Amino acid sequence: MRIALLGGTGDIGEGLALRWAYDGTHEVIIGSRDPERARTKADEYETELDSRGVEATVKGFANEMAADRADVIVLSIPPYHVGDMVEEIAGKLDDDDVLVTPATGIKRDDEGFHYHRPNAGSVTRIAADAAPDEVPVVGAFHNLAADRLANLDRELGIDTLVVGDDADAKEIVTMLAEEIEGLRALDAGGIANAPEIEALTPLLINVAQNNENMNDLGVEFK
Amino acid sequence: MRIALLGGTGDIGEGLALRWAYDGTHEVIIGSRDPERARTKADEYETELDSRGVEATVKGFANEMAADRADVIVLSIPPYHVGDMVEEIAGKLDDDDVLVTPATGIKRDDEGFHYHRPNAGSVTRIAADAAPDEVPVVGAFHNLAADRLANLDRELGIDTLVVGDDADAKEIVTMLAEEIEGLRALDAGGIANAPEIEALTPLLINVAQNNENMNDLGVEFK
Repeated sequence: MRIALLGGTGDIGEGLALRWAYDGTHEVIIGSRDPERARTKADEYETELDSRGVEATVKGFANEMAADRADVIVLSIPPYHVGDMVEEIAGKLDDDDVLVTPATGIKRDDEGFHYHRPNAGSVTRIAADAAPDEVPVVGAFHNLAADRLANLDRELGIDTLVVGDDADAKEIVTMLAEEIEGLRALDAGGIANAPEIEALTPLLINVAQNNENMNDLGVEFK
Repeated sequence: MRIALLGGTGDIGEGLALRWAYDGTHEVIIGSRDPERARTKADEYETELDSRGVEATVKGFANEMAADRADVIVLSIPPYHVGDMVEEIAGKLDDDDVLVTPATGIKRDDEGFHYHRPNAGSVTRIAADAAPDEVPVVGAFHNLAADRLANLDRELGIDTLVVGDDADAKEIVTMLAEEIEGLRALDAGGIANAPEIEALTPLLINVAQNNENMNDLGVEFK
């Protein structure tokens, strides 16, 4: 299976790319608006993995080409780009592809971070509304701290929640999530249940900011 | 210190009453609309604690009288009663009392459970708006499963998040929360940050319902 990380040059995309290449058994490709940047970052990831004794091939492409080549496409981009990005790559998607969205809307004020719920209901819903009917959308990886994920020295031991309206697509994403060591995937139901998952991300930041020694928090459901 | 659990005859109130009487060092009193029911439940709690070798005095009163007698008043009542209840007991509150609200708005549809955000922003905000200016309101205990809390055989090992705009009041509630064995209190900032905490409760139910062997879930931030 081939996994494309669109926006895979930073934030959560970088962490997922590194963890999948390190722990997983699938091919990872990096997408970026700028294909040169995608190639540079892909080389950096290869070097980082090589320094840890893992020989992995990570290639970089323009987003559209990365989407074309992949079976699972992760939209690791800001929430306000999600709808446009899905429309941009729609022509490259097949009915056996799976779109994955980890983005969440966050606004900040003096008090802290808050969930900025889109009119559509959730960012996951925006992706689903923009996707071709035959391409399933799964929400996952919303509540992972980017820096922690990208640092292979840091243990996870946390959960990610998976939502979607297509059981097969959810199963694929669950399988991929659990290839990452220390990450457990839990089913949170359909896309209608995405808002509360997305709202957990600003909460994690608020808890991290108000307590000592709690950076890059995740959660375990227990 | 004397803690009143208004609506302490069931749900989260029952669990907090039992845990505080079992693990804590403070006097616990039960409030109910019906004082006879409060006394009956208080007797039941004493019997339950006695069966575990703990000699505790738990008394029951009408809500207003319970509030009058207590230093910390926990509004363990449905969210749509919170505003009215605070107004009802307002005359009995002193400026060194602390009001605590664990309630959250939840609506259910075919897909699952969702956060029903009140117009005021959060249930915690409703309580704060209804309270006399000099009485601080703290949000806490939103994300604890009632049955698990009320079953003293079940271990916790989970977190509760504390929000409020009065640091001293938060400190008191944090201290009380951590008297419960296996419960860790984390600071989540001011009352403006309450919506995301309240939204975590329906998410916990969705996760419990979609995964095997995950009843009465809590979370650990890690």
